[in-house]
Amino acid sequence: MTENEDRHPEDGLIAAVEAGDLAFVQELLGKLSVDDQRRLISRCSPDEHVALLALLPADQSAYLLGNLAEPQAVEILEDVPSATAASIIHELPEEVGGDFLREMSVDESSAIVAALPDDEQTALMERMSYARDTAGGLMSGDFLSYREGTLLAAVLEGLSEMEDSSSVDVQYIYVTDANGILTGVLRLRDLVTKRRSRAVEEIMLRDPRSVDVRKTLEELEDIFDATPYLGLPVVDESGRMVGVLSRDEVEEALAEHQTDSFLKASGIVSGEELRSMTLGTRCYRRLCWLAPNIILNLIAASVIAAYEETLQAVIALAMFLPIVSDMSGCSGNQAVAVSIRELTLGILKPIDYLRVVIKEGLLGLVNGVVLGIVLGCVAALWKGNLMLGLVIGVALAANTLLSVLLGGLVPLFLKRFKVDPALASGPILTTCTDMCGFFLVLNLATLAMDSLV
Amino acid sequence: MTENEDRHPEDGLIAAVEAGDLAFVQELLGKLSVDDQRRLISRCSPDEHVALLALLPADQSAYLLGNLAEPQAVEILEDVPSATAASIIHELPEEVGGDFLREMSVDESSAIVAALPDDEQTALMERMSYARDTAGGLMSGDFLSYREGTLLAAVLEGLSEMEDSSSVDVQYIYVTDANGILTGVLRLRDLVTKRRSRAVEEIMLRDPRSVDVRKTLEELEDIFDATPYLGLPVVDESGRMVGVLSRDEVEEALAEHQTDSFLKASGIVSGEELRSMTLGTRCYRRLCWLAPNIILNLIAASVIAAYEETLQAVIALAMFLPIVSDMSGCSGNQAVAVSIRELTLGILKPIDYLRVVIKEGLLGLVNGVVLGIVLGCVAALWKGNLMLGLVIGVALAANTLLSVLLGGLVPLFLKRFKVDPALASGPILTTCTDMCGFFLVLNLATLAMDSLV
Repeated sequence: MTENEDRHPEDGLIAAVEAGDLAFVQELLGKLSVDDQRRLISRCSPDEHVALLALLPADQSAYLLGNLAEPQAVEILEDVPSATAASIIHELPEEVGGDFLREMSVDESSAIVAALPDDEQTALMERMSYARDTAGGLMSGDFLSYREGTLLAAVLEGLSEMEDSSSVDVQYIYVTDANGILTGVLRLRDLVTKRRSRAVEEIMLRDPRSVDVRKTLEELEDIFDATPYLGLPVVDESGRMVGVLSRDEVEEALAEHQTDSFLKASGIVSGEELRSMTLGTRCYRRLCWLAPNIILNLIAASVIAAYEETLQAVIALAMFLPIVSDMSGCSGNQAVAVSIRELTLGILKPIDYLRVVIKEGLLGLVNGVVLGIVLGCVAALWKGNLMLGLVIGVALAANTLLSVLLGGLVPLFLKRFKVDPALASGPILTTCTDMCGFFLVLNLATLAMDSLV
Repeated sequence: MTENEDRHPEDGLIAAVEAGDLAFVQELLGKLSVDDQRRLISRCSPDEHVALLALLPADQSAYLLGNLAEPQAVEILEDVPSATAASIIHELPEEVGGDFLREMSVDESSAIVAALPDDEQTALMERMSYARDTAGGLMSGDFLSYREGTLLAAVLEGLSEMEDSSSVDVQYIYVTDANGILTGVLRLRDLVTKRRSRAVEEIMLRDPRSVDVRKTLEELEDIFDATPYLGLPVVDESGRMVGVLSRDEVEEALAEHQTDSFLKASGIVSGEELRSMTLGTRCYRRLCWLAPNIILNLIAASVIAAYEETLQAVIALAMFLPIVSDMSGCSGNQAVAVSIRELTLGILKPIDYLRVVIKEGLLGLVNGVVLGIVLGCVAALWKGNLMLGLVIGVALAANTLLSVLLGGLVPLFLKRFKVDPALASGPILTTCTDMCGFFLVLNLATLAMDSLV
């Protein structure tokens, strides 16, 4: 593959799709890494996506979509005809299909579900009734279970007939009663060593650990933290087994959650953005976050307007206003990050504000004094005015203290009121520290005016 | 448990530790969730940690430490005597022990390793020779492998003797030749269905997929993305099997990586911070990030100093300087987040700067114009001066365009030069957008001075 081909694999793909050359398309896709598949798909237009999926067999389309980033896969499913989308959903694991459908508009997802066979419709509707990041949303519907009374010989027979490509985890095999209620778990290594004429209930472990279908991701994290199991059976309210949840799925959901927090804290708030999305969507989504911010900024900066006279008299202050507010903002953000991390780890609870006040108070005092001395010296030396240095230094020290206290506490309060700390901590903190920073510098300067001019 | 006990479980624990009441300590720890264990440990002093671990049997200490956040566990291991630490490391899975030791100073870790039995010393030294987030650092050393020639009967015998509490994954069993070179993999369900008098090499799958011990986390993510396996054998350069790597471990490391990026982007850069660490450590680490920032801030704000005359003439500008720089900073951070995300997903490569320029250029133009009109109108109405509105609006629009372009591109350049984009994108972006924002407002105002005063 030449470097040129590597840079524009989409040209070759599109030409082959247009020519209906399935063999070449399959060869090209097969040669690409997962990353390159994602990259290539992001370079194709909606029409090209439709043409590609019309050409590929449904199972290969499903495999391709499974490799893509979720927003990519959802976008493509929305572009293709409902029948094509349904045939792809049919090939995907139920939990993946459920996630994709949940991200679409109700109209789109209903049309796709309607094009599926009846039993799959029921299964998918049930799946979509569970919230995304719960045991019900994350679990796999593919698992091995046998009714009580089944002989080991029959279980072994079933196992030996399983296809190699099966994604079913055979580490554990579950046993249910006639009503589908989970009653036990069979370990493969017990199967291996017991007489084949025995029934499953004779060798199963009774009262197996299970998780309720409504458990949230946070609860699931605790459960898997506290047990060594690679997977647990999921049961509904009545104890009926409905799926298995692997540690893997929980870890993956947690990783996505972290990514989500990072994006939210950076102002990507209403769902993940990829640059392959339409310009309108991207502009609108980003503006939704920027618009409230412009108002918060105006509120903060109005402090400056109130002190125009002081500023006019000592114009040197203007250079230090953004420095004081930015530096305090940085200090406060560090405290926000530590609080969010400690909340995630469970080390901090929303009621622990006293601990945060003490711990951040001391730190804010030390760092505030250090930074205040540094910036104060710069100010004093620059204008040869000791009082200017004092005003700037004291303002930065005080604002740093205030900012780390606030930065440490805001995530606790947000968490208490069920607001995502990653989403709202930044803007709240910045607005407050900007206002206070401007106020401290300009108010102290007004008080010390005689020595400044 | 009353609410009061819930808030201060450490009082009960400390009293019991001091009284040497092991039974009560065990009961208390057993009742606590993983989160509450972490929280309790963060409230105890170093002396109390030493007393607690002196009281608990090593296996229970190991279990407790395994539940804690890593920085907590490392801190405690550094506090206790080397012999105690060694007895705990001995009980921990080798990969966890290796991670803990890698985080300590060389003196501390050497003292602990020296207190271990010889064969464990060798194993841990080898483990620590692999970098943390590589196959060698992440793999588990506990796996089932048999030499070629072993009969299935012997394998089954071994399986049935395994303890229930074993953490070994029995999904796959590996086969090596006389030199320890990996030659095949045995599936449990084949074991179950074949005659026990056959040798492992007769029923094993040959040429099993394996990963090199030096593979990085990024490479491992691709490998697991592209295969359905729950675990893969890890081999050294010579093909000798040295461990197994589960999908689980890779997912967990990726989640930690995301957390790490989030912390780094917020200015927690030299290792995770918990508030239970000493004030000195916490102040020093945070200042290490703030100190370069103060210099960058001074550089950016020096633009204001260069335009003092303009500012003095049109003091109303002072209020808009921080708004323009903050708002552009927000827009740029959104572009940074999208670029980092697309780089992670593989949708973007560091060479794709042209795509970023086009995609962010258009978005920057639209959002810049929208935000510029809004802020421009505010400025014009506030002072009843159309030219002031024009200056502010054009400055914000231009700076937004510049900032999203820069925000989109900086992560690509950093990635290309092997610098972590999460670490450095923020400060670079902020400095540039602050400078340009100040320059645009003040320079445009200087040009339009006649209509402003």
